[in-house]
Amino acid sequence: MDPRIAEHAKIIVEWSAEIKKGDRVVIRASPAAQDLVVALNREIARVGAHPITIFDIEDASRAYIDAASEETLGRLPEHVKALYESCDAMIAIRSPLNTRAMAGADSKKMVLLSKTMRPLSNITLSKRWTLTVHPCNALAQQANMSLDEYRDFVYGATLLDWKEESKMMYVLKEHLERHSDIRFIGPETDLYAKTEGRIWIASDGKHNLPSGEVFTAPVEDTVGGKIYFDIPFLQRGKVIQGVRLTFEKGEVVDFSAEKEQDTLKSIIETDEGSRRLGEMAIGTNRGIKQYTLNMLFDEKIGDTIHCALGNAYKECNGRNESAVHVDMIKSMKEGEVIAGDEVIYSKGKYLWEM
Amino acid sequence: MDPRIAEHAKIIVEWSAEIKKGDRVVIRASPAAQDLVVALNREIARVGAHPITIFDIEDASRAYIDAASEETLGRLPEHVKALYESCDAMIAIRSPLNTRAMAGADSKKMVLLSKTMRPLSNITLSKRWTLTVHPCNALAQQANMSLDEYRDFVYGATLLDWKEESKMMYVLKEHLERHSDIRFIGPETDLYAKTEGRIWIASDGKHNLPSGEVFTAPVEDTVGGKIYFDIPFLQRGKVIQGVRLTFEKGEVVDFSAEKEQDTLKSIIETDEGSRRLGEMAIGTNRGIKQYTLNMLFDEKIGDTIHCALGNAYKECNGRNESAVHVDMIKSMKEGEVIAGDEVIYSKGKYLWEM
Repeated sequence: MDPRIAEHAKIIVEWSAEIKKGDRVVIRASPAAQDLVVALNREIARVGAHPITIFDIEDASRAYIDAASEETLGRLPEHVKALYESCDAMIAIRSPLNTRAMAGADSKKMVLLSKTMRPLSNITLSKRWTLTVHPCNALAQQANMSLDEYRDFVYGATLLDWKEESKMMYVLKEHLERHSDIRFIGPETDLYAKTEGRIWIASDGKHNLPSGEVFTAPVEDTVGGKIYFDIPFLQRGKVIQGVRLTFEKGEVVDFSAEKEQDTLKSIIETDEGSRRLGEMAIGTNRGIKQYTLNMLFDEKIGDTIHCALGNAYKECNGRNESAVHVDMIKSMKEGEVIAGDEVIYSKGKYLWEM
Repeated sequence: MDPRIAEHAKIIVEWSAEIKKGDRVVIRASPAAQDLVVALNREIARVGAHPITIFDIEDASRAYIDAASEETLGRLPEHVKALYESCDAMIAIRSPLNTRAMAGADSKKMVLLSKTMRPLSNITLSKRWTLTVHPCNALAQQANMSLDEYRDFVYGATLLDWKEESKMMYVLKEHLERHSDIRFIGPETDLYAKTEGRIWIASDGKHNLPSGEVFTAPVEDTVGGKIYFDIPFLQRGKVIQGVRLTFEKGEVVDFSAEKEQDTLKSIIETDEGSRRLGEMAIGTNRGIKQYTLNMLFDEKIGDTIHCALGNAYKECNGRNESAVHVDMIKSMKEGEVIAGDEVIYSKGKYLWEM
């Protein structure tokens, strides 16, 4: 087995999910993640904990949704709830066989199922939980890479010294929380927001692995100015590119996209909250050197910032509510991040590098 | 998808596990059983029930056992127990990637783990449960076949009219239970036992799919005579062949094997109960025309009988206890089964065919 898989498993167990003796662990994995499941079983055994693995197959979920009635999809599976409630930690491995298996599913049924399953998500959020990726052909294909290239990409982003990364992210958090506003400056960009009373969260590989971002929810009606997102992103099966947004009093008042502007329009017009920013964030993972149309990686690229239209995180004290949360990324090698009177980031350098 | 997979799923859901609206179902499957898991999801959705699939990977179990301490292996995973307790039906699919993955595992640890997990087996036995097979390369290899041949073999044995099969098996059961003894006669064979107070069970595709046997536990100290088992079988990684056993007052007093006699000896000498028969049975599945070294199929071959040394089934009122239960099969095309004064089977014909 690729020794990087064992190293990945060790980071998940020891750093991310902090599995300890006696822990009852639920792993969710697809058949493509088999090698990581084997490595996790070894690591979990070493610390004296107890794993069970739930088999995620997109085609099985698709067959279930296609054949189930709305009555069936509206019923919470109590045995799954019992499993979730009685576990201590959950490890979800994203490693699809086919990223587009749900594309043709009935969207009304999808929304209903996701609503039915919300109590399970809430139970997950109340435990130690980690979402990670195991390199597979479907994700390599989406990233425009061979599987071997994609493995190098994933492990380059994931097998970091997370204790060190965490220290740097907490320095950023501490400096950002000294101030009550944030400003992103760069080519075609000058975006400003108040952050008073909001919490900056250092995402240091506990819930997302890889991670590497420090994020907050801006005060909703204080976002103003304009921003140009130069990194493409995938939404609703479309690659949206070159997004320009202008904000006044927290709301998008003008927008354009170089590609898929209609999709951007439909996102912005989803509901009241989708016209506002739910997140502003700084990416810090320099192990990620290119975008791959997978937000788990792209929003963490080192020397970038990102903003999300839509729902805000309650942990940040965010209040914006929306059915969507759409991240958009901007490279900052030519830009600056300023909080109050302090330069947090400038043209390729974080504050401790200046 | 091979239409036989959908047909298999339909039989499992409707006949074997009798899944109905609202049922909470646990499926256990390996990555090789993916297509059947997809088909089962569709069938289970159709009847309005709720599946969750547990991922069985031999290499993961092996890694876990190798790395776990005895303390860890001795602890029952309470979250798995919670899942099992709150389900209505369990469907286990045998479809290994490698039938020999556990061969090198520490046998002391294996025994300990199996003891720890016994409460889970007992929970399973208290629910509706079905064990079936999905054709895969590992089982095809063990059966000395290509995967395509093996698919034909498995579906030939499995996609039967189980309602009709069941009727025939219940006729056998009814006739066998009219009498208080059983006798297997054939080349080098004349074996006799009392069956007073014992129950004959018709295995008609509910718990095992495929199935096709009617079995009981003989009165322990009444087994006498000799028998020649001409069909090879796999035990402890060895193919044992041409077993001859002689019984007096229920105990093996003489034995030989044409191949692997030492392995046979070690089985017989396991404990007190392993010198006695725990099962005597008649195979009835004419969809199975050859042995494949997989007991789930071999013991059900039509026109055969089989006996097991060791542990008896409590459901038959059997009392013999042993750590082993080793089935051995004899073809009966030249033989007879007689109960009391009635010929149950004779040279290729069951009683209703004579």
